[in-house]
Amino acid sequence: MIVVMKPGASQQQVQHIVERIEQLGLRSHIIVGTERTVIAALGEKRDGAKQALETGEGVEKVVPILAPYKMASTEVKKEPTVVETLGLKIGRDRIGVIAGPCSVESREQILEIAQLVKEAGAGGLRGGAFKPRTSPYSFQGMKEKGLELLAEARNKTGLAIVTEVMAPEHVSLVARYAAVLQVGARNMQNYPLLEAVGECDKPALLKRGPSATMDEFLLAAEYILKTGNQRVMLCERGIRTFEDHTRFTLPLATVPFLHQTTHLPIVVDPSHGTGKASLVAPMAMAAVAAGADGLIVEVHPDPEKALSDGFQALTPAVFRQMMVDCRKIAVAVGKKL
Amino acid sequence: MIVVMKPGASQQQVQHIVERIEQLGLRSHIIVGTERTVIAALGEKRDGAKQALETGEGVEKVVPILAPYKMASTEVKKEPTVVETLGLKIGRDRIGVIAGPCSVESREQILEIAQLVKEAGAGGLRGGAFKPRTSPYSFQGMKEKGLELLAEARNKTGLAIVTEVMAPEHVSLVARYAAVLQVGARNMQNYPLLEAVGECDKPALLKRGPSATMDEFLLAAEYILKTGNQRVMLCERGIRTFEDHTRFTLPLATVPFLHQTTHLPIVVDPSHGTGKASLVAPMAMAAVAAGADGLIVEVHPDPEKALSDGFQALTPAVFRQMMVDCRKIAVAVGKKL
Amino acid sequence: MIVVMKPGASQQQVQHIVERIEQLGLRSHIIVGTERTVIAALGEKRDGAKQALETGEGVEKVVPILAPYKMASTEVKKEPTVVETLGLKIGRDRIGVIAGPCSVESREQILEIAQLVKEAGAGGLRGGAFKPRTSPYSFQGMKEKGLELLAEARNKTGLAIVTEVMAPEHVSLVARYAAVLQVGARNMQNYPLLEAVGECDKPALLKRGPSATMDEFLLAAEYILKTGNQRVMLCERGIRTFEDHTRFTLPLATVPFLHQTTHLPIVVDPSHGTGKASLVAPMAMAAVAAGADGLIVEVHPDPEKALSDGFQALTPAVFRQMMVDCRKIAVAVGKKL
Amino acid sequence: MIVVMKPGASQQQVQHIVERIEQLGLRSHIIVGTERTVIAALGEKRDGAKQALETGEGVEKVVPILAPYKMASTEVKKEPTVVETLGLKIGRDRIGVIAGPCSVESREQILEIAQLVKEAGAGGLRGGAFKPRTSPYSFQGMKEKGLELLAEARNKTGLAIVTEVMAPEHVSLVARYAAVLQVGARNMQNYPLLEAVGECDKPALLKRGPSATMDEFLLAAEYILKTGNQRVMLCERGIRTFEDHTRFTLPLATVPFLHQTTHLPIVVDPSHGTGKASLVAPMAMAAVAAGADGLIVEVHPDPEKALSDGFQALTPAVFRQMMVDCRKIAVAVGKKL
Repeated sequence: MIVVMKPGASQQQVQHIVERIEQLGLRSHIIVGTERTVIAALGEKRDGAKQALETGEGVEKVVPILAPYKMASTEVKKEPTVVETLGLKIGRDRIGVIAGPCSVESREQILEIAQLVKEAGAGGLRGGAFKPRTSPYSFQGMKEKGLELLAEARNKTGLAIVTEVMAPEHVSLVARYAAVLQVGARNMQNYPLLEAVGECDKPALLKRGPSATMDEFLLAAEYILKTGNQRVMLCERGIRTFEDHTRFTLPLATVPFLHQTTHLPIVVDPSHGTGKASLVAPMAMAAVAAGADGLIVEVHPDPEKALSDGFQALTPAVFRQMMVDCRKIAVAVGKKL
Repeated sequence: MIVVMKPGASQQQVQHIVERIEQLGLRSHIIVGTERTVIAALGEKRDGAKQALETGEGVEKVVPILAPYKMASTEVKKEPTVVETLGLKIGRDRIGVIAGPCSVESREQILEIAQLVKEAGAGGLRGGAFKPRTSPYSFQGMKEKGLELLAEARNKTGLAIVTEVMAPEHVSLVARYAAVLQVGARNMQNYPLLEAVGECDKPALLKRGPSATMDEFLLAAEYILKTGNQRVMLCERGIRTFEDHTRFTLPLATVPFLHQTTHLPIVVDPSHGTGKASLVAPMAMAAVAAGADGLIVEVHPDPEKALSDGFQALTPAVFRQMMVDCRKIAVAVGKKL
Repeated sequence: MIVVMKPGASQQQVQHIVERIEQLGLRSHIIVGTERTVIAALGEKRDGAKQALETGEGVEKVVPILAPYKMASTEVKKEPTVVETLGLKIGRDRIGVIAGPCSVESREQILEIAQLVKEAGAGGLRGGAFKPRTSPYSFQGMKEKGLELLAEARNKTGLAIVTEVMAPEHVSLVARYAAVLQVGARNMQNYPLLEAVGECDKPALLKRGPSATMDEFLLAAEYILKTGNQRVMLCERGIRTFEDHTRFTLPLATVPFLHQTTHLPIVVDPSHGTGKASLVAPMAMAAVAAGADGLIVEVHPDPEKALSDGFQALTPAVFRQMMVDCRKIAVAVGKKL
Repeated sequence: MIVVMKPGASQQQVQHIVERIEQLGLRSHIIVGTERTVIAALGEKRDGAKQALETGEGVEKVVPILAPYKMASTEVKKEPTVVETLGLKIGRDRIGVIAGPCSVESREQILEIAQLVKEAGAGGLRGGAFKPRTSPYSFQGMKEKGLELLAEARNKTGLAIVTEVMAPEHVSLVARYAAVLQVGARNMQNYPLLEAVGECDKPALLKRGPSATMDEFLLAAEYILKTGNQRVMLCERGIRTFEDHTRFTLPLATVPFLHQTTHLPIVVDPSHGTGKASLVAPMAMAAVAAGADGLIVEVHPDPEKALSDGFQALTPAVFRQMMVDCRKIAVAVGKKL
């Protein structure tokens, strides 16, 4: 850390900070500049120390030097993590596609879609059984019955089931049916949930919160990794900005940025990321071109009749074409999809 | 709802939408304009219908007319809700102040602060026992031991304890000690938690998520109200924007906006809202001038030694002065603090 | 327009709005719903009327139905506009690349880069002569001398010069040297400048302001189109959000959105859009995959010695590789680059 | 500046940066930490150097220590700047109020409003003659005729005229009539305009751009100050965020922040800052409580008939009440209004 003192900070104030640094088990190093003094604090400590110094008298700001996450960092593990489960392989030169409806609505619906997305080349089947809905008056999902239907679809197709878990006490139930546990954007900082998922032996798909910075996103992953689950996939699904022509703003530069920062695979969700069916395929293609390791896409046999989020669901025909187009981009970047 | 058709939408497409509207139990009303046709959908339905129509062929957009929340709305209940518990009274002409440390750190610390903030005129004592922390390597709170210390402080001072609950399974535990259950900003859309708080008989302080719109905020409150708990206080604590000179951006216009929209009382948190001790008092004063019903403020006897968020905590002396200044503003707006 | 009345608006208030609508030369149409009344205002008028109605007593909000721009809209002109000047062709199946330094710094520098980017396949040469700089203490550009050097580079290479114009009184000077007049992001709503560019016979490259909505962006283009210049290219260069790991957030969904909304070609600037050299090539590739008609990229022979923005400039070698990779993506989407 | 090297940066890379630092006329100072090396660069230089170092091989980031502005800074001038012209006094213990219509629309309108706002206690009269409008189809102002009417209003009332100047070539014209030159939010980074205003001997009111950081805002002021005009007032008028219940988000924490950072007076515009007449008075009161030195507010005798922005204009009666209420807050904070 670098402690920047205010202009005109007294000798005494500088000395006080030096003592605080040493109490924290760090080495200090004073640098006297033309207009102000800065003090370097050297050592292993990553947390708490910044705050302790920030409030010292005469301190203007404290600049951290080290990233606050460890296990997620490429500084700790250089080779990319690959997640493989049933028909789904995500990472390195393999792009995995997870597709399906927003919600499981009926046996017919989920079995039909499963077959369709399987034929188009998807390796995973998405579908909400427990649905976090903005309004308490909206459809809340089929719950365990939905999980059973997903399992039936998996048995028929071999697709890996990817479904959301909303509360720590549901983790073991969901894990009985799902291949991948999804932590939704609204729950990115639900720490008891992250820890419960961390104790589970199924891979996790962690969605970025709509106002999460990269540090916060990677620290949320760190909760899962630290608890013991090493198979974490990060999912960029759009952030909240002033833009009003899309539901969220999908910032694809996170893909190459994260590849430089973490070994975890990056999945992109162009359905929530845009909120408009007509923008999903171009953004799926762009995500592959930017280096995404996976895609998660909403598909519905009849979007007009979907119980949730129909406006962003692709029809089966559009999804098939999207797969054809994405495969061309994958080839262009030297990967398989 | 108003369904706006694309320019050049066919007669058939218009007819199809009309049929869909009637299937949804609504009446339809076609308006043929110079450049496009719009269809009004009239009736009681608030949810699902919008999505069902949005995906129709030839539809450009669907404009909702009614607010999606009901019980939180001034359309349903006009007179302001007042929350009163122990020494804390929030709403109408009474401004309640909740003050205390970010985290409970020790018996001495919490008892000392409780005494100090009580003397300065606070009616509630804040203090985290279960702490949601961005990093898994940060201090996570004293948990139940912290709750016991808070209860001891309450017994000595009569202050109402306001403390965060992070998981549904902790609600009954926290409610044994606390007067007010706080739902943190990270958990604003943790629906199982909102429902658990809704089943509790203690008032709730619901913090706005840093990227929540007013609709989302009020719908989160609606989850608690609908489950049965009518004593909900809304807390504005800052939103995430591009601004980098404060930790969050504190948008005080939410205060008069919410007073026009909902009967629930509005509390402002200038500590998280700015993230800088030197900005807390002016923003507390501004909040009172804008019509806030309550304040929640971080105070620490020795901010430099705080285990969390010391940089935004007031010293006892600054807090006392803030109370004096806020009281003058309260008088100027015809309220008591 | 749809005028939504407040719940409980009086018969008299509704009547008053109906009269106002008719005074504005529009037809009115009352729709009485279950909870409130809405009034449709039908006719050609696009401006002023909304505001006039919005302030009426008993009015809750006014919802516009028509897009506020005309000449930029695909409703007016369906076939895509193609801009062609010297070696640069942008639009339809041709992707044009504009590359070069942030600023013209010296004769050697600009001639060397021009040669390099030409060889790599660029059709346009960028380079600032008049530089808008955040700080008055930063290098402000070589001004007319810089334009002369750009013209020399054009003579040697045949590249189309793309350079910024900052004030209406400079338009004729810059147009003497440049093939394309760039209006910078800071000037997107500098209306005297837009009109001066509108009177010029050179194509314009209009950069999106970092907090401009799509309506504002297209209305800025409308200023140029309306004044008489039909050759306008829109440039997405990133928006300001809370993200701090990139200089701006580059929202590529604007590319397909704009293709659905306007006939004008869309150029993407991954250099400003990310602000980090290591993210430029992946985002250039993603832009092509999303359907961009052009790219504008900063390249410098020795980024470390650049007088401005070196941190986001590509070295010639990286730029050459980027061109190879983008060409593969272009082929995958059926275009030429 | 602090240059943070990547983990594993070579001895050679460190040496190269040290040499670059010395070439830039700065002293270097190497600090070897546990995980990485940082190099302090010490000396007077404020600009360019950061960029030059940022691109060096092995460099992770460069952290600036000094603020980039000088003349605006409290480090250079401690005592607050007070701006006084005709009946308007802004700064220190005096709160000045500037009120009037969005646009000058007619002789009757402007003379009537001038009289009204004068009687209510305003010291300045606002009113647009040259209007920057998002759409080219909107009313663009009465131009010079509007200025003449403003001058007539000033002659009758003694109010200081505050009006916008949109282009460098209009500065001398506008300065003939106005007491204060307003630079609009869209032009905050129109540098030729800032310099033209800097050469003028009339005070300037510089509005914050809707996505400007504090550094950018203060650097824009620095352009005016550096060119020679020391009487600059900063105007907070709201920023663009995801919030959709107000036109902009009005972040009042900028008021105390700027008071700590600059000696220039701070004016708040609650009309643009909220875009809703019903929120203007509470936010004006909040601004005074937060320490604002001035207010600029839109008032119209008949908002429903305003040619622009009627939805955010106060009626004379509401404005009078706002003045009464703001005066009470001013007294509470020890100031005069």
